[in-house]
Amino acid sequence: MQLLSEGDEPVPEFLKVKTAEEIVEMVRSFAPLEAEIVSVQEASGRVLAEDVTAPEPVPHFARATMDGYAVRARDTFGAGESLPALLEVIGEVAMGRPAETAVRPGTAAAIPTGGMLPDGADAVVMVEYTQPLDAHAIEVTRPVAPGDNVLQVGDDVALGEKVLERGRKLRPQDVGLLAAIGMEEVRVFRRPRVAIISTGDEIVPPETRDLPPGKIRDINTYVVASQVREAGGRVGTIQVVADDLDELEAVCREALAAHDVVVLSGGSSVGIRDFTIQVLERFPGSELLAHGVAIRPGKPTILARLGEKILWGLPGQPASAMIVFTAFVRPCLLRLQGVENAGNLETNVRQAELARNIPSVHGRADYVRVSLSNDKGRLTADPVFGKSAMISTLSKADGYVIVPEHVEGLEAGTLVTVHLFSSP
Amino acid sequence: MQLLSEGDEPVPEFLKVKTAEEIVEMVRSFAPLEAEIVSVQEASGRVLAEDVTAPEPVPHFARATMDGYAVRARDTFGAGESLPALLEVIGEVAMGRPAETAVRPGTAAAIPTGGMLPDGADAVVMVEYTQPLDAHAIEVTRPVAPGDNVLQVGDDVALGEKVLERGRKLRPQDVGLLAAIGMEEVRVFRRPRVAIISTGDEIVPPETRDLPPGKIRDINTYVVASQVREAGGRVGTIQVVADDLDELEAVCREALAAHDVVVLSGGSSVGIRDFTIQVLERFPGSELLAHGVAIRPGKPTILARLGEKILWGLPGQPASAMIVFTAFVRPCLLRLQGVENAGNLETNVRQAELARNIPSVHGRADYVRVSLSNDKGRLTADPVFGKSAMISTLSKADGYVIVPEHVEGLEAGTLVTVHLFSSP
Repeated sequence: MQLLSEGDEPVPEFLKVKTAEEIVEMVRSFAPLEAEIVSVQEASGRVLAEDVTAPEPVPHFARATMDGYAVRARDTFGAGESLPALLEVIGEVAMGRPAETAVRPGTAAAIPTGGMLPDGADAVVMVEYTQPLDAHAIEVTRPVAPGDNVLQVGDDVALGEKVLERGRKLRPQDVGLLAAIGMEEVRVFRRPRVAIISTGDEIVPPETRDLPPGKIRDINTYVVASQVREAGGRVGTIQVVADDLDELEAVCREALAAHDVVVLSGGSSVGIRDFTIQVLERFPGSELLAHGVAIRPGKPTILARLGEKILWGLPGQPASAMIVFTAFVRPCLLRLQGVENAGNLETNVRQAELARNIPSVHGRADYVRVSLSNDKGRLTADPVFGKSAMISTLSKADGYVIVPEHVEGLEAGTLVTVHLFSSP
Repeated sequence: MQLLSEGDEPVPEFLKVKTAEEIVEMVRSFAPLEAEIVSVQEASGRVLAEDVTAPEPVPHFARATMDGYAVRARDTFGAGESLPALLEVIGEVAMGRPAETAVRPGTAAAIPTGGMLPDGADAVVMVEYTQPLDAHAIEVTRPVAPGDNVLQVGDDVALGEKVLERGRKLRPQDVGLLAAIGMEEVRVFRRPRVAIISTGDEIVPPETRDLPPGKIRDINTYVVASQVREAGGRVGTIQVVADDLDELEAVCREALAAHDVVVLSGGSSVGIRDFTIQVLERFPGSELLAHGVAIRPGKPTILARLGEKILWGLPGQPASAMIVFTAFVRPCLLRLQGVENAGNLETNVRQAELARNIPSVHGRADYVRVSLSNDKGRLTADPVFGKSAMISTLSKADGYVIVPEHVEGLEAGTLVTVHLFSSP
């Protein structure tokens, strides 16, 4: 029932209508999926299932942090412009190799930034504070203390130091850190497998060649699939099913067996054809966590658990389905991947200035679609009006703004938080 | 030379030192790669290579936008509470199917939201404004005009209407729109193939088991590979090469043959071992577009064209390489994928309040790494200090803030633009 009315008729009290906050609270209580081991090269975007401690120190040898000369600091004590210290240059440290000769009292070795400190040396004199006398001797015009211009073993990362915490979503720079400490593999939470099902007698698969009269192409399977991928989920079965209880039950049964999450759209309107609920009743042990959310649009949202599996019922209207996915299903998928505070530290948000007034009706949180424009870093959010059945308005919107339940609208110029439908 | 000094010694004038703005300007002038055809299902994140016009109208039949009765509007003219119009109900429109009977004068057909308007009907009376008299008749208590509560053919998307423009990076909602108009395939720009090469005598591949003294694990190949993937590029060859001119030339030659872009890191410091420039000199027809950028860090950046191919030389310091990648290579990869205004409409930015003062030296743009924290949507940017050779600081940073050339630092509390290293 892709286009069932989402009118304002009251939802019967016996139904489990929840607030948006209650839904997010439930999602946050879900346990992550089990852990698996992946190579560090493939770990970007995955979520750590364990704290990572450094199996080796960085650096694992004392390194020069400046171009100059490796010396024994005591040989430079008291050195100055007027009374430079004279040192014999016994060689040059090559990058990536141990020095061939130790630095003994009265001697120095040329060393590049990053070079390995020779035995005997305990500091580096910057080249700026030296004068070559001849090919084999320099004058040092400023003293150094032991450790000056040297990164000691473990100065950057100590052996056994905790460098990254469980629950961290790995970014490219975190992968770099893992590479630096010699990690080849890392334990991360498994990504959820997601089945996507659209129901409705009027719905045909988008690839249908000649559209029969009365039918419309399904949109939600494509949109939801793209959103699932962006949220780190793995898309499995994608299917369009007619409003037939037995068929829907069979499809759901198969989908639940092979996936962690099933996302249904359509059929969940609190109305004449509430197939999703009827299907759930056929699964023993299924637990209806929410039947309706007090937001507009999105009222007919369903959330159920079936053992370890999760079933979401989204409104059939594509715009409503996108909003509900962004607000609840995305945090759920992130949470299953082990992200801490999914839905709390919502990263896909922008602050923007409202371009026009948004009227709103007291009594239910309004999720109003907006388009963003960027004028030299200053973001403006323009409400996208038009019937939510209109497909053309779908791609005009970048995200939504929430007008809270007890607010009667927002004025132009207000700074608002825009929840993005997708990563930019 | 991963850890060559990026000191402050002046760059000789004959070198092609550019400002950050000049680099971005050059990148913006690059032509996108050729187009290819992909299925709409796989099109999310890709960039349109042509305007898309609707091959069919949406809806392709007149649809009810409310639950109610399909009627001939003239039959309701003058109807009201006191004088309702009496209509015979001749049937019910089923979802997804043409009506079986036409609506003749004096009759009506029950119709659900989204149902197909029967022949003869030109409006829908909302169920709220009707009263059933018996099973076969209703009273209409409010008149409708022709077209009321009906979405006409093409009202949402007209046949031949331009719905999406060339250069648009397709988001899930755009894919939904393409599905709605029956597109199965779409022309998008090809994604660039990117080779990643790290040079330096002290560098060993990250997966090296026992780290020899004087050597460090390569980090840049892993970080750059993750960043390339995030920017939509396809990672090809990944290689670590010693500072050997002939070997580097051979590796670059192979990489240029099989990729659109080669990203070298290390070896590009304007210093003693400027292998990248020497390698470029061995390729006839290579054009050095930039040898140095007036930002800190990032000074030793190289940009060259070799026919259709692009070569970037990044500084060897991982933190510097990340900054240069984010500022220039990422916009370049986006531009090759056909994104308009890459580097101008930079979407991976956040406004944040600076937590501490940032001192800066007059005369060069400072790119200062910051970590972000989020307190109820209010972002704070905290500068990450510490030697840029320190790997441990790498993963503490979320992005960078630019202190412009002629500004001597930024004060705590300033609202700054943070350029993110990666999508959150």
